[in-house]
Amino acid sequence: MRILGVDPGTAIVGYGVIDHEGSKLTPVDFGVIRTSPDLPCYRRLALVHQEVTEKIRCHRPEIMAIEELFFNKNTRTALSVGEARGVIMLAAAEEDLLVEEYTPLQVKMAVVGYGRAQKVQVQEMVKILLGLTKIPKPDDAADALAIAICHAHSRRNPLVRKGEGS
Amino acid sequence: MRILGVDPGTAIVGYGVIDHEGSKLTPVDFGVIRTSPDLPCYRRLALVHQEVTEKIRCHRPEIMAIEELFFNKNTRTALSVGEARGVIMLAAAEEDLLVEEYTPLQVKMAVVGYGRAQKVQVQEMVKILLGLTKIPKPDDAADALAIAICHAHSRRNPLVRKGEGS
Repeated sequence: MRILGVDPGTAIVGYGVIDHEGSKLTPVDFGVIRTSPDLPCYRRLALVHQEVTEKIRCHRPEIMAIEELFFNKNTRTALSVGEARGVIMLAAAEEDLLVEEYTPLQVKMAVVGYGRAQKVQVQEMVKILLGLTKIPKPDDAADALAIAICHAHSRRNPLVRKGEGS
Repeated sequence: MRILGVDPGTAIVGYGVIDHEGSKLTPVDFGVIRTSPDLPCYRRLALVHQEVTEKIRCHRPEIMAIEELFFNKNTRTALSVGEARGVIMLAAAEEDLLVEEYTPLQVKMAVVGYGRAQKVQVQEMVKILLGLTKIPKPDDAADALAIAICHAHSRRNPLVRKGEGS
């Protein structure tokens, strides 16, 4: 199964495509989509939507795994990230992909096996699990790969999906 | 100039199309887009995007005026409304419309001339300004028309646009 992981953000969107066969995980493509802060918000959203659509058409994943974010302070940020999430999930719907959402806790549990894992521990595990020679850069790309791995592992271990593994 | 006003929401999106010539405002179309809560989030976003696109293609407005929301409590709601705003503004970008954002305060100032106006006062003014025989229903449609009127009035009075009119 081919999985597209996405780490949504306002200025930068991380993506990571992996193949999952048996217990084997193989990296296919990863990177980030950046949009210029000089563009009005709706033009940036259109670029994000277009580039995510291109990634889907290029790699034909079966599923999009996207981070489900909770904010406890900044509602302005939540609104902006929501806008990016909206156009990213729309791209998935238009290309007939399923979408699964995972919380940061679920991602840590599935990748490191420990819900309080540090960011660098998650990145190190991403490197090891995908057989890469170094940690994927930038961070948003590594995060997106972690979300894709989370989906792969959740298929084997339903406890992760329910968030009961902690 | 033809203006499309949009009141973004998660379960219900209000829209209102008006024509603005000289000092005359004429209603063209208004109503709401509803999506079923039984559908997954990304399917609902796809429906909202599709229906907003159809409204734009049908009425060919020159501009979309959309409410800029600030939340001081519920970040979960901000994220959801952000997702809806994202796909709505994307529809505008794809159809080459400009997008202008107005805060609730700006809308009240532009429609009623008073920043602390009650919801029902705004709706009553929408009815009067558009020469309607009754207040547009549901509320989300009336709100969308108010946003469109706000854009029309802001063109005449730049103070409203800058939020200095209070």
